[in-house]
Amino acid sequence: MTRLPLALLASLLFAFPAWAAKVTSYRLDNGMQVVVMEDHRAPVVVHMVWYRVGAADEPPGKSGIAHFLEHLLFKGTDDLGPGELSRIVRQNGGSDNAFTSWDYTAYFQRVAADRLDLMMTMEADRMRDLRMTVDDVATERKVVLEERGQRIDSNPGALFREQRGAAQYLNHPYGIPVIGWRQEMEQLNRDDAFAFYQRYYAPNNAVLIVAGDVNPDEVLALAQKHYGPLAPTPDLAPRARPQEPPQLVERRMTFTDARISQPYMVRSYLAPERDSGDQREAARLSMLAAVLGGDAATSVLGRKLQFEQKKAIYVNASYDGVSLDDTTFGLVIVPTPDTSMQDAEAALDRAVAEFIDEGVDAEQFARIKMQLRAAQIYQEDNIESLAQDYGEALTSGLTVEDVQAWPDLLQSITEQEVIDAARRIFDKRKAVTGWALPETEAAQ
Amino acid sequence: MTRLPLALLASLLFAFPAWAAKVTSYRLDNGMQVVVMEDHRAPVVVHMVWYRVGAADEPPGKSGIAHFLEHLLFKGTDDLGPGELSRIVRQNGGSDNAFTSWDYTAYFQRVAADRLDLMMTMEADRMRDLRMTVDDVATERKVVLEERGQRIDSNPGALFREQRGAAQYLNHPYGIPVIGWRQEMEQLNRDDAFAFYQRYYAPNNAVLIVAGDVNPDEVLALAQKHYGPLAPTPDLAPRARPQEPPQLVERRMTFTDARISQPYMVRSYLAPERDSGDQREAARLSMLAAVLGGDAATSVLGRKLQFEQKKAIYVNASYDGVSLDDTTFGLVIVPTPDTSMQDAEAALDRAVAEFIDEGVDAEQFARIKMQLRAAQIYQEDNIESLAQDYGEALTSGLTVEDVQAWPDLLQSITEQEVIDAARRIFDKRKAVTGWALPETEAAQ
Repeated sequence: MTRLPLALLASLLFAFPAWAAKVTSYRLDNGMQVVVMEDHRAPVVVHMVWYRVGAADEPPGKSGIAHFLEHLLFKGTDDLGPGELSRIVRQNGGSDNAFTSWDYTAYFQRVAADRLDLMMTMEADRMRDLRMTVDDVATERKVVLEERGQRIDSNPGALFREQRGAAQYLNHPYGIPVIGWRQEMEQLNRDDAFAFYQRYYAPNNAVLIVAGDVNPDEVLALAQKHYGPLAPTPDLAPRARPQEPPQLVERRMTFTDARISQPYMVRSYLAPERDSGDQREAARLSMLAAVLGGDAATSVLGRKLQFEQKKAIYVNASYDGVSLDDTTFGLVIVPTPDTSMQDAEAALDRAVAEFIDEGVDAEQFARIKMQLRAAQIYQEDNIESLAQDYGEALTSGLTVEDVQAWPDLLQSITEQEVIDAARRIFDKRKAVTGWALPETEAAQ
Repeated sequence: MTRLPLALLASLLFAFPAWAAKVTSYRLDNGMQVVVMEDHRAPVVVHMVWYRVGAADEPPGKSGIAHFLEHLLFKGTDDLGPGELSRIVRQNGGSDNAFTSWDYTAYFQRVAADRLDLMMTMEADRMRDLRMTVDDVATERKVVLEERGQRIDSNPGALFREQRGAAQYLNHPYGIPVIGWRQEMEQLNRDDAFAFYQRYYAPNNAVLIVAGDVNPDEVLALAQKHYGPLAPTPDLAPRARPQEPPQLVERRMTFTDARISQPYMVRSYLAPERDSGDQREAARLSMLAAVLGGDAATSVLGRKLQFEQKKAIYVNASYDGVSLDDTTFGLVIVPTPDTSMQDAEAALDRAVAEFIDEGVDAEQFARIKMQLRAAQIYQEDNIESLAQDYGEALTSGLTVEDVQAWPDLLQSITEQEVIDAARRIFDKRKAVTGWALPETEAAQ
């Protein structure tokens, strides 16, 4: 990547249009939250329904049911045949999809703006009237098991990630994979799926996001027409998952697999997430990740380990604070061929310790803040990814105000705060350190 | 310990009285299992009620509630004031106690045999009619938190055990401590405790064990009188906890604490438990633990690591197959002062590998079998510990027949089976290896 001089970057930044999506938020009488983002530059609309339920809300022993149910949502209703929703979206020139995380399950369509009424008709229909036959369940269980086989079981990196996740969380269900443990997926049945559906798929547990070439009043009227009549789930308890006890000792693991060709190390530290009205520590950690592990040529770890010491061919730091409960701060190093894992890890630890001693470089920090502003503007420019951001945030305990406050919060973080946050987060007692090695190397 | 010549041991063994407790088992109409063990050598009786519920049956986020409820059971009923049950037992010259594990919660009294009617009156009373005030709950919560403070938080060995347990189980609630995680214990309330009590404290979830100077018919009549009228919990589902996914990678941890003076290593391997009608692998593992880690002078690990190589001041292998779900096989080594943890661990691994190559020493194996027979006879001689064994087994998925078959099953295990079981169990991918070090040592 070419390094732009700061002055040029700044001029580019201010050259961007000052366009920003207007975000309005309502709540229907049945408890459904409605968020509208106007963007009239193209005659399209993104229609999303986000449920405040994910894999971390599953009953014990039923792992995978949130994601399994996501599949079953395409099986049809009283009014829609199996697969018909997706077919209608395609026939109208649109695309649709769905995704499940630990904190949310979401369904969306992207289509011409004048088809919004049709999208809502179908999405509202499957919120409460899903048809779920024992046959559908049996068929779809095979599909998700096959998905697990392809995405996880045949992928050593994914298996390693699963085992590290389970070791990271001593008590919280974030340690359980979203797709589910195979032996539990094999037992998922219609009753489990239906109970989960009936409880959590309800307007008072959902966020509707409509983004694009729409008028907020019209969207609200349509939402009231389609989603307004749906019955909420009574006595829906606030979300509460088992939380972590004090983590007192680093967990280490060396994963070996013949299919791994390139050794690497991942360390994750338990980290606080963004809480509503209390996002500052998360903002510090975001800045820390950017300083340590952004662009290879200018980041602290990239400069020290790749360019100066030549210990690594890749190094990174990562943190995503959008999470209902405790998340992780990650470090990755891929050593050069003549560097052992032990050396690479020691070099990484040294680099982090030196960074804490040396402090944040002022020029790098100013550059990162500028790049963040630029990225934010790019982001605002993409209405679909902006809608995605709001959906994730609103189903992870944050508000529209929290999302809107975030960019300025990042800008307000000082160099000293980043160093202080680094001192707090790099506590190995809360860490899982994993080495991934080719089988031959482990045998030595 | 003195080594007895085999011939002498054998003669001692056959010199033991051929006494064995007669065990009879019934089931009341409301589903309560009744087990009677006759032993007329002393005019005492042990009266126990075992519930098929323990810490591993707790709802997520409510850790500690099974043990907390055990405390609340002494708070009184409609007919008994707080602490009155224990006071009456003492006034009658007896003793009483209770204990909670992952798989069971048990209450027992040891008292003169003619007081059995009184014991049953009180125990049956608190099975269904417990009084539980908000004040009782608040007071007792302080007590169990204090208990946690003393038994766990101020004990580095216990804290280390907790962290290892959490790392051992990726999915199963055996990874959660019986006493509970502090932050969850602090939230335990009357509603949680009462719901747990109402569901699980019921005759169809209980085993009554009466052992001592009693007549089975009279015990059955008394049981019918006191426990017979109690209502069972309808639709009590079979016990089913989340099971382990494949464990793919060893977890390692180094726990340092200033209060640790003697470094040591514990490794635990996930291991199959005794299943009803299918106890053979567990019997092999029991024999393996006895061969590897019994008496220091004759056991494989003791001989190699303590006596020959002088690498360890203590070494042990342990396995207890009485468990509803997967249990663990443990290895411990405490190195000599001039042996590093790394050397000690490598020596332990080598000793185990050599053992698998060398096979089981026939003379040692014969001696162990003889000692087991002797221990079994001692055990039978202690009616209280025998009752305890039955209680644990019957609340851990086993039957009276399984318990009775166990001693002969152990005797039938061959040397080759022990080696084969060793090959299966010592799979580091299913292991947690923990080093406990004084803080100074870790800082080096």
